[in-house]
Amino acid sequence: MSESQVLYEVSEGIATVTLNRPERLNAWTGTMGAELRVAMEKAEADPEVRAIILTGAGRGFCAGADMDALQGIGAAGGTQTPRAFTPFDPGSKPDFHHPQAWFPTVGKPIIGAVNGPCAGMGMALVLFCDLRFCTDDTVFVTAFSRRGLIAEHGISWMLSRLTGHSRALDLLLSSRRVTGPEAYRIGLADRLVAPDQLMAEARAYCRELVEKVSPRSMRVMKKQLWEDLLRGLGEALKEADREMVESLKGADFKEGVAHFVEKRAPRFTGA
Amino acid sequence: MSESQVLYEVSEGIATVTLNRPERLNAWTGTMGAELRVAMEKAEADPEVRAIILTGAGRGFCAGADMDALQGIGAAGGTQTPRAFTPFDPGSKPDFHHPQAWFPTVGKPIIGAVNGPCAGMGMALVLFCDLRFCTDDTVFVTAFSRRGLIAEHGISWMLSRLTGHSRALDLLLSSRRVTGPEAYRIGLADRLVAPDQLMAEARAYCRELVEKVSPRSMRVMKKQLWEDLLRGLGEALKEADREMVESLKGADFKEGVAHFVEKRAPRFTGA
Amino acid sequence: MSESQVLYEVSEGIATVTLNRPERLNAWTGTMGAELRVAMEKAEADPEVRAIILTGAGRGFCAGADMDALQGIGAAGGTQTPRAFTPFDPGSKPDFHHPQAWFPTVGKPIIGAVNGPCAGMGMALVLFCDLRFCTDDTVFVTAFSRRGLIAEHGISWMLSRLTGHSRALDLLLSSRRVTGPEAYRIGLADRLVAPDQLMAEARAYCRELVEKVSPRSMRVMKKQLWEDLLRGLGEALKEADREMVESLKGADFKEGVAHFVEKRAPRFTGA
Repeated sequence: MSESQVLYEVSEGIATVTLNRPERLNAWTGTMGAELRVAMEKAEADPEVRAIILTGAGRGFCAGADMDALQGIGAAGGTQTPRAFTPFDPGSKPDFHHPQAWFPTVGKPIIGAVNGPCAGMGMALVLFCDLRFCTDDTVFVTAFSRRGLIAEHGISWMLSRLTGHSRALDLLLSSRRVTGPEAYRIGLADRLVAPDQLMAEARAYCRELVEKVSPRSMRVMKKQLWEDLLRGLGEALKEADREMVESLKGADFKEGVAHFVEKRAPRFTGA
Repeated sequence: MSESQVLYEVSEGIATVTLNRPERLNAWTGTMGAELRVAMEKAEADPEVRAIILTGAGRGFCAGADMDALQGIGAAGGTQTPRAFTPFDPGSKPDFHHPQAWFPTVGKPIIGAVNGPCAGMGMALVLFCDLRFCTDDTVFVTAFSRRGLIAEHGISWMLSRLTGHSRALDLLLSSRRVTGPEAYRIGLADRLVAPDQLMAEARAYCRELVEKVSPRSMRVMKKQLWEDLLRGLGEALKEADREMVESLKGADFKEGVAHFVEKRAPRFTGA
Repeated sequence: MSESQVLYEVSEGIATVTLNRPERLNAWTGTMGAELRVAMEKAEADPEVRAIILTGAGRGFCAGADMDALQGIGAAGGTQTPRAFTPFDPGSKPDFHHPQAWFPTVGKPIIGAVNGPCAGMGMALVLFCDLRFCTDDTVFVTAFSRRGLIAEHGISWMLSRLTGHSRALDLLLSSRRVTGPEAYRIGLADRLVAPDQLMAEARAYCRELVEKVSPRSMRVMKKQLWEDLLRGLGEALKEADREMVESLKGADFKEGVAHFVEKRAPRFTGA
């Protein structure tokens, strides 16, 4: 039996999803893609899980598409049909119903713990995470321009929403190496921590979400924030007004006021 | 006679609007909302006023919705109908015709002088200001996720237009405290000054606007910048071309060239 | 014969385009505009050229519209008809078919080397460059509000896509001076270098593009990034999927894999 290309474990309400081809810097394969989706479906379905960490085994995060696969595509004459994709959450905007852009439809926060090199296809993975934690060992490389390729999988769209337009141009045109500190400076990463503290810091952040925050609020707000990138303020306000009325009916709102008034830790259920 | 919940005063061409429930950290009430609107209408109508500062009395800016009011909503079964809203400026985009998102329709710059804690509903207030000045005493907290609520009043839409997408996710999902220095770093605040210099610095900035800048230019450009968030470049260029032709007919353009050529201070009238 | 208002030279695969009215800080004229277009057409047509640097002769970059011209407009009664504009690349989005917003339709990267003061109309030039390099001698000034004018040529739209919304408001409302270090901090500039190193650093960056990167990739990705500002994620993904298939058929993709596998410098042709 072959070893899994994606590892999955849960503790303290946090699911950790680990890309697991360390001997290839977790280079992307179709199998890895399928296993990643299964892992996220498990995390979404498990009521104990309130936050998700995505990381890589060994010293890398994800080196991009496996070079053997890329060579194969070249040899095969260069055609590739995008696969059909079953929406993770049918109620979400169709923009996210794409085999490389569906993380926004997972109803729980996904924190990328970018433990080392992250290149090409790996960039698409981390850009569609909700947050990115990185270290001095993290290196981001878009890589496409050095392979004669283009900005794949919505990377050109998403990167500029994090860093601003011209920083995205810089990174994509040049394929230059961006280390953790620069990534943090330009908005590509949300935290810069010591390499040996990466998982501890990512877990500490997630524990705060698990212990102090309503899962219902997180689910609704994650959807609001991603979909607000795709609509005007008027529509966003309409949706917010609708969701506010709904939230006021929920058990989490009652608990949200009660624990504050009673000065105690909350016990949110997500209802 | 009860004391006003919003104070209003004018000097040196600057209107100062002060949220005034200091014993409750200026927690938001319906009365405060109504008085705030009246104050902004006064500032807009007064030809002497060219810039507006919004701040809070005492040691806070605005603690969010009054907790008594929130509990009442819970007790009442959790329904709340958004109030009808008369546009402040009927010529502006309907996106801004909303009881919590109308600051962009005021034709004069609004500078938030965020003197202390700013939470929940207070975030909506400052996000729709044109600029935000803060200090080491300023603390921003979205708060919704700890009450079982959602991103109200367009906050999810507006925050990401200032800080980028994932910083907005971070602040809204976690409800963590963001101090003045971090707010300045991530684009949520435009200035970081010493606490005892906050009003002096905000006034100094506004005095520059009063003394050196065409009120007509400010009115048109404020509208351009907010509406450009809601349209493509082609439409923005069309509007700019149209407004440029109009501006060339104005007395402020004549004066703008004349004072430069004559090397003297300008005397703009706003015409 | 009068001297050219725009200089053009090519070496090492880099075209350098220089605004050349140093005695007027390269103030903008209609002639300069026409010559700038001719220079860019040459750069686009020359297969040897893979990157373009735009800079100013003498101690300034571009002081904005020539003040004599501005006075003339005032004297003429203030009417001005936007000129008809022939698209540089008819396949690009119509938003860029505008006499002051067409740089995005040039298929090669344009690096602004902002060697000194850049004001008014000069801001439109640099904002539509792909990247901006600046120094301690660089000063950006929007200037419009001090002339009784408005945010011309799409500046209000473009500036906020680089710096975020409220920093754009700050710069446009106040017309205050923004030096190189601040420009770098707020995302208006991509590099901050020593004044005497500006051209060397801009050339070094361009040489990396010339030597290591596929011209075909740059052309496609530049178009993706600019047009992604004007569309939703779903459309961006569709375009990326289409362009990926095309790129896999190209000689540059074959070379991109081959040079990597063979551990040698690439020899991209742009095919």
